[in-house]
Amino acid sequence: MIPLLVTVGEPAGIGPDCILRLFTDDPASLSGCIIAAPATWLNERATAIGLPTTACEHPDLASTPTCDVGLQCWNPLSDSTASGPITLGRPAAATADAVVACIREAAHACISGGAAGMVTGPIEKAILKNSGFAFPGHTEYLAHLANNSDFVMMLASDTLRVALLTTHLAIGDVPSALSTQATLRCLEITARDLQRRFGIASPNIGLCALNPHAGEQGHFGDEESCILAPAAEAARKNGIWVTDPLPADTMFSAPVRNQFDAVVCCYHDQALIPIKALSFGEAVNITLGLPFIRTSVDHGTALNRAGTEKVSYSSLKAAISMARDMRRHPGKADTRQTSI
Amino acid sequence: MIPLLVTVGEPAGIGPDCILRLFTDDPASLSGCIIAAPATWLNERATAIGLPTTACEHPDLASTPTCDVGLQCWNPLSDSTASGPITLGRPAAATADAVVACIREAAHACISGGAAGMVTGPIEKAILKNSGFAFPGHTEYLAHLANNSDFVMMLASDTLRVALLTTHLAIGDVPSALSTQATLRCLEITARDLQRRFGIASPNIGLCALNPHAGEQGHFGDEESCILAPAAEAARKNGIWVTDPLPADTMFSAPVRNQFDAVVCCYHDQALIPIKALSFGEAVNITLGLPFIRTSVDHGTALNRAGTEKVSYSSLKAAISMARDMRRHPGKADTRQTSI
Repeated sequence: MIPLLVTVGEPAGIGPDCILRLFTDDPASLSGCIIAAPATWLNERATAIGLPTTACEHPDLASTPTCDVGLQCWNPLSDSTASGPITLGRPAAATADAVVACIREAAHACISGGAAGMVTGPIEKAILKNSGFAFPGHTEYLAHLANNSDFVMMLASDTLRVALLTTHLAIGDVPSALSTQATLRCLEITARDLQRRFGIASPNIGLCALNPHAGEQGHFGDEESCILAPAAEAARKNGIWVTDPLPADTMFSAPVRNQFDAVVCCYHDQALIPIKALSFGEAVNITLGLPFIRTSVDHGTALNRAGTEKVSYSSLKAAISMARDMRRHPGKADTRQTSI
Repeated sequence: MIPLLVTVGEPAGIGPDCILRLFTDDPASLSGCIIAAPATWLNERATAIGLPTTACEHPDLASTPTCDVGLQCWNPLSDSTASGPITLGRPAAATADAVVACIREAAHACISGGAAGMVTGPIEKAILKNSGFAFPGHTEYLAHLANNSDFVMMLASDTLRVALLTTHLAIGDVPSALSTQATLRCLEITARDLQRRFGIASPNIGLCALNPHAGEQGHFGDEESCILAPAAEAARKNGIWVTDPLPADTMFSAPVRNQFDAVVCCYHDQALIPIKALSFGEAVNITLGLPFIRTSVDHGTALNRAGTEKVSYSSLKAAISMARDMRRHPGKADTRQTSI
């Protein structure tokens, strides 16, 4: 079976800790996974935190594992991106190219079919930007590598799935960032990936209004009638089951949210407030619309905890588990919705 | 003991149903309460829905009850505001003045000390506006009657209390509606009422950022540093324990929200999404800053359910229970915070 790849992210942060501690406590949760990183990143951290784990490197993804019991790594770095030394909690410009190369080569492996998908560890965006990385984050970079301009950020837990129309914007910039076309595209991608990645034949999607009380018939805001409702109408004509824009405050109450396979939200906090309120530490970040599976931890590099015992791998474990669940599905859209 | 007053709200809506069904199922939950309405509003509905309840009218609030077992009412209507006929589910202009008069006289009774507080049923705002009622809702009207320009909308459940800096505004209008002065005043009112109404000697208050990730050091929005943080700083100088603006998505996760006695939110859905996600049907609407206790049901008039069996009194019961809890406290601020 082709593997799932796990990227370490920033090697000076808690990424290596999470992988090592998860492997030590629950090695089965990493079965079928290969860490896309130099084995030295893991082995040096294991020594630093006193874990017996030994990581070993595959020469390439398709080869037979070189070790039976160790943590399996694949080093995607060429000589030109060889990593500099790593100091706990101190991201270095010297390793920035290597961090990006690991992500890039993992994505290429997914695109070429050498890997089934990738689970990404947390990166330190500031140090990557200073080294010339021109993307706001993983999601945009992966979409770029896949030559894919349309993608959707989703967070999912056992309780709730939320998809976002906009992500990292000032709240005052959200209204002008919404459009009927982009909303329709988000609805299409969400519906299609609920089918092909989650195996839901006929997804039910809730659409959140932007304004309180859905604008109360235009009394405070008209984005509902001008932008969102036309997108919902167009999506329904394309065979997608989606509501008109509904008030966001009741959308996430149990009786309403339980009616939907996913809720499409207008802005970051509209989506992340309810999922973190209901499923803190269990939500997985998923990029929909890519030609491969991608999940992510929902935390940062936590530099001040790198190499300490104050590291939780629950998010990594959930992200791997979600990616594994997603690969069980056939990867084909329901033919009922041929227009998507 | 002076009573709590309960207003029916729109008599053609579910307000009377909620009171009658609650009284029938659990009369003790209305002990110490008097309904500020003509007894006929209740008795006619009781007949319509086949309940044996008999409402009887006190001539005035201070008098001995005229009935031992019936639902106790006090009719605040003078002849000039006598109510017209009531048709189930059909709010009428002829009763609009009476609806407003019941609220006004209940508030006057609270202000004069004849009642301990009021629990308000749902009104039909459109019909009141058409009849000249010039307020967005109960809250603003009660503040006007109390000659009180400063008030704060709070929603509270056993899990969470949220207070709002802005209420019914288009999301695009929220940033310009925020100010340091109003934020400080909201923090002061919230802190004071947590003391005098909830008996929390030294309240801990969380302050939500407006923008995602609290603006990420100004990358998307600067209201955190320009407006909110200065208000928090000023409040702390006045002895109020409040955080700097924190990212709203993690604010409502269990480990964070549990640190606070209340969370002050920048806009309607930032507050109402988490409380309805976590405490649907249990949250009570409270107006802070008034010289008396005021709680409210969290639902509307549900005109199409008036007189049917599809009426839940859980919100009314919670609102009365909350008002009763609030009156247990001495009503005096902690002298430690003399500057409030």
